Amino acid sequence: MANLILHEDPVSGNCYKIRLTAAHVGIPLERRSYDIQKGETRTAAFLDGVNPNGRIPVLQIGDDFLPESGAACLYLADGSALIPHDRFDRADMLHWMFWEQYNHEPNVATLRFWRAFIGEDRLTDFQRTLIPGKQAAGEAALALMDAHLAQTPFLAAGRFTVADIALYAYTHVAEDGGFVLNRYPAVTAWLARVAEQPGHVPM
Amino acid sequence: MANLILHEDPVSGNCYKIRLTAAHVGIPLERRSYDIQKGETRTAAFLDGVNPNGRIPVLQIGDDFLPESGAACLYLADGSALIPHDRFDRADMLHWMFWEQYNHEPNVATLRFWRAFIGEDRLTDFQRTLIPGKQAAGEAALALMDAHLAQTPFLAAGRFTVADIALYAYTHVAEDGGFVLNRYPAVTAWLARVAEQPGHVPM
Repeated sequence: MANLILHEDPVSGNCYKIRLTAAHVGIPLERRSYDIQKGETRTAAFLDGVNPNGRIPVLQIGDDFLPESGAACLYLADGSALIPHDRFDRADMLHWMFWEQYNHEPNVATLRFWRAFIGEDRLTDFQRTLIPGKQAAGEAALALMDAHLAQTPFLAAGRFTVADIALYAYTHVAEDGGFVLNRYPAVTAWLARVAEQPGHVPM
Repeated sequence: MANLILHEDPVSGNCYKIRLTAAHVGIPLERRSYDIQKGETRTAAFLDGVNPNGRIPVLQIGDDFLPESGAACLYLADGSALIPHDRFDRADMLHWMFWEQYNHEPNVATLRFWRAFIGEDRLTDFQRTLIPGKQAAGEAALALMDAHLAQTPFLAAGRFTVADIALYAYTHVAEDGGFVLNRYPAVTAWLARVAEQPGHVPM
């Protein structure tokens, strides 16, 4: 395999997903850090050379660049036990990964970034108007996970897959965003199961 | 293959992605319609029996339910020429699909829904405050596609994949949301290439 470089911000959960996947499949990654808050992913060099979307993570594979955490995790996990062989199970894993990016990350992760990294007193008035909606949508996302995980040990296929990695990243630090995890006991039990998997690495 | 039922709203681009994928791979779908604006995906029967997330599309496969348009498209296209065999190309296709759900759909599709289906005069004050941000982010998404498609005929792998289907759905009706497509000539040319593919069906 070509040399792999993860362009990341070490505090980003989206970047952690890729490091956690790589740890589980035993693939070494070189790491290059950028500070989002200092605008280091919006420089001309980054936009031209790494990702025109101005975002991390990006997984560099030789001379090729792969943005989007889900795509990078699935690239690394390709052919491993983290991706189910069964056609429905594999699609169901993808369902949770798409759901995470649409319903969970913009709420649970964004509130963590605003509250724990920017700081509530430094938010714009516009950001403040978005908080109640993001709080409610984040709680709905955690409640949906909780109801599902009360029925099954892992999100898809009844076993540990990339979907669990993708959802673990921001869920396990959701309290940084103002969410109360002990309201979601099935989620809490699942977080512990994910952290107990052989090969697990902390954020 | 088990009997396939698409739970959908016929005006939704996310649902159209699944119909378009099914048409390209020649898989027949039964269709069940719900009117989002009448709350038909928020009834107890829908939440309990189809999708606890209260959203369409959901692809029903026998007794199993698969939410999220991207997952359903990838399920249908599994093993077909719409999914690249090469590991990087396949991940790059997924990158565009995740990007669509995070950067394109919440802007380009939401403004279409608000302007063409709800109507600007019936939006809430809160929705109105979100319009400028969604307009700017939607334009940035279309500009990013345009720069990429000026270099390559299709989004990933140099050929027609599920990523093109996923992005075509809301891009080809972006003018309903107030976007001006002739500002993006490479996107416009790509839309025509997608519509010329054998097996294409209109929305």
